[in-house]
Amino acid sequence: MATVQQSPNRAQALEAYYQELRQFSTAPLWTVLKSLLTPTPQPRAVPFIWRWRELRPYVYRAGELIGTEEAERRVVMLCNPGLDGAAAVTNTLYAGLQLILPGEIARTHRHTAAAIRFIVEGHGAYTAVDGERTLMNPGDLVLTPNWTWHDHGNESAEPMVWLDGLDLPLVNAIDAMFFEEYPQTVQPVTKALDDSRRKYAQGTLLPAYERHLGHYSPLLNYTWERTHAALIELAAHDTGSPYDGVVLEYVNPRTGGPVLPTMACYAQLLPPGFEGQARRRSISAIFHVVEGEGYTEVGNQRLDWQAKDTFCVPSWAPCRHVNTSSGKPAFLFSFTDAPVLQALGLYREAAE
Amino acid sequence: MATVQQSPNRAQALEAYYQELRQFSTAPLWTVLKSLLTPTPQPRAVPFIWRWRELRPYVYRAGELIGTEEAERRVVMLCNPGLDGAAAVTNTLYAGLQLILPGEIARTHRHTAAAIRFIVEGHGAYTAVDGERTLMNPGDLVLTPNWTWHDHGNESAEPMVWLDGLDLPLVNAIDAMFFEEYPQTVQPVTKALDDSRRKYAQGTLLPAYERHLGHYSPLLNYTWERTHAALIELAAHDTGSPYDGVVLEYVNPRTGGPVLPTMACYAQLLPPGFEGQARRRSISAIFHVVEGEGYTEVGNQRLDWQAKDTFCVPSWAPCRHVNTSSGKPAFLFSFTDAPVLQALGLYREAAE
Amino acid sequence: MATVQQSPNRAQALEAYYQELRQFSTAPLWTVLKSLLTPTPQPRAVPFIWRWRELRPYVYRAGELIGTEEAERRVVMLCNPGLDGAAAVTNTLYAGLQLILPGEIARTHRHTAAAIRFIVEGHGAYTAVDGERTLMNPGDLVLTPNWTWHDHGNESAEPMVWLDGLDLPLVNAIDAMFFEEYPQTVQPVTKALDDSRRKYAQGTLLPAYERHLGHYSPLLNYTWERTHAALIELAAHDTGSPYDGVVLEYVNPRTGGPVLPTMACYAQLLPPGFEGQARRRSISAIFHVVEGEGYTEVGNQRLDWQAKDTFCVPSWAPCRHVNTSSGKPAFLFSFTDAPVLQALGLYREAAE
Amino acid sequence: MATVQQSPNRAQALEAYYQELRQFSTAPLWTVLKSLLTPTPQPRAVPFIWRWRELRPYVYRAGELIGTEEAERRVVMLCNPGLDGAAAVTNTLYAGLQLILPGEIARTHRHTAAAIRFIVEGHGAYTAVDGERTLMNPGDLVLTPNWTWHDHGNESAEPMVWLDGLDLPLVNAIDAMFFEEYPQTVQPVTKALDDSRRKYAQGTLLPAYERHLGHYSPLLNYTWERTHAALIELAAHDTGSPYDGVVLEYVNPRTGGPVLPTMACYAQLLPPGFEGQARRRSISAIFHVVEGEGYTEVGNQRLDWQAKDTFCVPSWAPCRHVNTSSGKPAFLFSFTDAPVLQALGLYREAAE
Repeated sequence: MATVQQSPNRAQALEAYYQELRQFSTAPLWTVLKSLLTPTPQPRAVPFIWRWRELRPYVYRAGELIGTEEAERRVVMLCNPGLDGAAAVTNTLYAGLQLILPGEIARTHRHTAAAIRFIVEGHGAYTAVDGERTLMNPGDLVLTPNWTWHDHGNESAEPMVWLDGLDLPLVNAIDAMFFEEYPQTVQPVTKALDDSRRKYAQGTLLPAYERHLGHYSPLLNYTWERTHAALIELAAHDTGSPYDGVVLEYVNPRTGGPVLPTMACYAQLLPPGFEGQARRRSISAIFHVVEGEGYTEVGNQRLDWQAKDTFCVPSWAPCRHVNTSSGKPAFLFSFTDAPVLQALGLYREAAE
Repeated sequence: MATVQQSPNRAQALEAYYQELRQFSTAPLWTVLKSLLTPTPQPRAVPFIWRWRELRPYVYRAGELIGTEEAERRVVMLCNPGLDGAAAVTNTLYAGLQLILPGEIARTHRHTAAAIRFIVEGHGAYTAVDGERTLMNPGDLVLTPNWTWHDHGNESAEPMVWLDGLDLPLVNAIDAMFFEEYPQTVQPVTKALDDSRRKYAQGTLLPAYERHLGHYSPLLNYTWERTHAALIELAAHDTGSPYDGVVLEYVNPRTGGPVLPTMACYAQLLPPGFEGQARRRSISAIFHVVEGEGYTEVGNQRLDWQAKDTFCVPSWAPCRHVNTSSGKPAFLFSFTDAPVLQALGLYREAAE
Repeated sequence: MATVQQSPNRAQALEAYYQELRQFSTAPLWTVLKSLLTPTPQPRAVPFIWRWRELRPYVYRAGELIGTEEAERRVVMLCNPGLDGAAAVTNTLYAGLQLILPGEIARTHRHTAAAIRFIVEGHGAYTAVDGERTLMNPGDLVLTPNWTWHDHGNESAEPMVWLDGLDLPLVNAIDAMFFEEYPQTVQPVTKALDDSRRKYAQGTLLPAYERHLGHYSPLLNYTWERTHAALIELAAHDTGSPYDGVVLEYVNPRTGGPVLPTMACYAQLLPPGFEGQARRRSISAIFHVVEGEGYTEVGNQRLDWQAKDTFCVPSWAPCRHVNTSSGKPAFLFSFTDAPVLQALGLYREAAE
Repeated sequence: MATVQQSPNRAQALEAYYQELRQFSTAPLWTVLKSLLTPTPQPRAVPFIWRWRELRPYVYRAGELIGTEEAERRVVMLCNPGLDGAAAVTNTLYAGLQLILPGEIARTHRHTAAAIRFIVEGHGAYTAVDGERTLMNPGDLVLTPNWTWHDHGNESAEPMVWLDGLDLPLVNAIDAMFFEEYPQTVQPVTKALDDSRRKYAQGTLLPAYERHLGHYSPLLNYTWERTHAALIELAAHDTGSPYDGVVLEYVNPRTGGPVLPTMACYAQLLPPGFEGQARRRSISAIFHVVEGEGYTEVGNQRLDWQAKDTFCVPSWAPCRHVNTSSGKPAFLFSFTDAPVLQALGLYREAAE
């Protein structure tokens, strides 16, 4: 760019001009253009890992300090250190660890932010969505889509903890949050337990006698039992992707597309000794380790992980997964904002 | 319509005029208009049932009279009595019973007519499609889509018979048939056995590391084992449709739509004593009885069926299914041209 | 194929077997397989041209011999010589020349066969579709989609002739015809004249305050005035396609797709002296010459054409257009079954 | 909600706990839940109007203070008073007034933020996009979609000012900004002037010989001449919407959908004396007055407007338009983030 001579007078004139602009709620573009139109994404969110062995005591401590009735939801939120304490892991995604103790209920409400639940520990608490209940076990992926009535209850004898994933920062960023409480604490159960599992969990066979009109998957619970079995079976014959190993997307069986219009979910198996190639994508992702140990390089950070840890990969950061075990596969669950970027024509990826 | 006086002169003049028109490869519309624009569809195909106990000996007799090498495919075609001996069950659908004896090969070819195979008896013969093989067993649905290389071979010790279903009459009616032989008798096997089953048979979990670009399902074999289990499980909780009982559509897991762009496939369970309501649809359908006994009223015909029988329902004929067993469910497989009618905006249905 | 020894006994046995099969409404595939699975499409329809100078007197003669009231529609149908007198130009498409005299009405009815009208001569007769009327002039393309109420009336002082194009053979081939007469001869006019033209003829600007839910274009009349101007303007800068010159598809402004789910319409300008390259397509097409003279080679036939002639190109026939005028462009209108072949995954093209 | 007794000890324990959580980059959800899950959207952006008569001198003053070469783009940005000086009118949309003087060039670059330009004053400057130029005049809508090379130049004798509209806040909020400079100042012109206008401005007639694969409209310039004429013609017969009067959406002629995947554009005519009904929508919008005078109530603010003013309507604010002239129509242009909300399943509207 040619250098314009910055005479003192000109600088003063510009400054005066800028002040006048401010009075009219305007401003010069040229002083900030380079910070707005960056060559590549400059996420404020940083690569970060939340370790289960550190957080677990605090999650359970919450159970002593506050009740679900008071809390509405008893959740320890994961706050990206780059985002100034916001309730956000990245600019679009939120995650938290939710605890529900035996006998507790998390009351019925609905909101336009969509949520996924990935079970960390405990067995047999339920989630109810629009009249259907499912019992949850470790590794299960449970959906509570945009504007569906949902409540949780723990009728088992053990506490349950799950990872909540929401598009909360996105929905608030685009000013689209609606929230409503149900008249009663617990919504009526109107369907048989796991009704949607019988109808939709085959995927390749769908009930011809009912239409599901939502933009989201009709399947309430993608059980880990099936996900795990599918990964194992696939990995016996297939190496999958050089970046991700054997990676499956959880899909909406009505469309073959993502489970929610704002979030995509994946389960992946990194074979023993897997050393992935690095890749950048214009999406942000939150990973949760189901089983195994290894590390993920995100930019120039190395995030060492083991079971039940949670970590994030901001947009366009080079990301590379390694399974450090020579004998056991590692299993990762992840969710991303890929459907958003794809719908808006902004998805990119590049091998490093 | 007002009556125009048909003076002898006018009649003569019209006849002379019609003859002249013929010379120019033209004709009056008004003499045939009512036969073209009918109030409802007037299929020439009639309701009909082909009984397995009658046909079985002839199917096996073909195995004595002709080899697969000579025949290319050894098939006893089902010919609708209303269609003048055409290779067609309805105006759009073809079906036949194909026999392959131990040690035989049905050589590799491809064609734009798409095919489905529904296994009637025998165990362990294979179908190969584009480099992947699957072993077939009774009740399995195997796809050989439009323009995919396919061959069949029987390396088992027993004969196998399956029901072929093709869109052959349709593809020929719209002048779109292409056919090609593979240079060798048997195409090379380039994928692991049942590769697509591991990748696509979950439906709700799809490999994120490969794209399948076809307009058809990537899943080669929808096994009866899974279909049967899904029907049983669903029927334990659900009554399904008043017309069809518990009915599942086999779908393309990449889209949630029909397995092929020209044919949709269904499996249904009629509970013991089921007496369906009658319904008309602007599609034609071919049913195959997997298990059980009962009858289907099609218009004013009653087609009594038992296991392995095949019957057809022409367009817009009222159709009503009854399971005459008070103790056992009946299982029907069917395929229809519904995707064609739907894609063209011509699908209709009406309860009787 | 290996030769199996045809002993006299075997031939007899086969013949006896074939006769038995017939009794059960079955037949061997292998005796007809090669006629069904042809290497390329074998349309019975032949390339043919109907010349306006020959047909015109017969079209007007119909006006003397029969009234619209008696005829329902007074149409001289074009019958492909290869199709045994069927009401068809190809296996999927029908065409006819319809005459409506001053003061006449072609009463209101609807049918599932969709129709296009391309005006040949006359000015100012109307077509009404679902309560909206348009006045027609030469070169206008008017749509009467599947199941829309439509009537025609000639309140002008001159006769009008148009080319009717319908998917009649297709709709009957797939047994999907429904037809209904309106209670009155003339349906009520419920919209302003050319209501849809004001709303939809811009294409790039659509009314945000109404939804059009049909699978067909909401625009009733694509006037020749605009089509002609667009072709002329485009041809001033662009050479278009080596096969078709400057060719525009009439589209549904709500989708950018074909005007009807079963038929696509095109207008093309062949520049002076244009000698197109030959191409095959797995579709059938009917062309109508709006202006100019030249010829089209279809397979090894040469169809010399001039204004108002109509000719057809069967599926997969190599087709090559030539404008024999060195000074004037030629204008062709055409309609095809391309949307059908495309929807079903059966569309192909190949340069010769 | 039941009241848990807040003993001093408990309060202390909680505070201590919260501090500990902070050390692990975590936080309690329950203290902020109500601020995150709001009953309705709580945009920080406020209703605001920028008046042309006030801003015009400052826009031209920029032309004296800074060159396009130095500025890259010489734009006075509109900054919503609720958004703390951010380069944003709403959380998703940016707007600015760009000035280009005779002889100037705004150099070639591209970015993933998409832009629309709506011409305010001046005649004949050009925008070039991917090798095609168009000359711009007041009221024209010019698109420079995501990742297309674009430059502007003013070869006319008068200054030109346009309103820039971008999805900049959104693209940065979702960390998807990429930016690149072209090697040369001015990209080569590879197409005839207004090439896309000849091909795509009819909308209802599209070139059959080229495919446009972008997710955005292929039409570079939607001229005011045509938009104005379409509105006038439509308003002569139609009252349009009770909320918006006669309102047209600018669409992508290849799809009938919005011009860009992130922004929809509209032109509307408020008839003389029009008093709209109020409505809320879960989108944000920026309006620009092309002609006329009136006011828009946004929530409990009244924004009085006249020609060339620009104002905004935040998400879910009740919005009501009034044309205060009893004799003349008013013309508004607007752009919104509706495609984003719709793609993500978050669009809502409600009459007040």
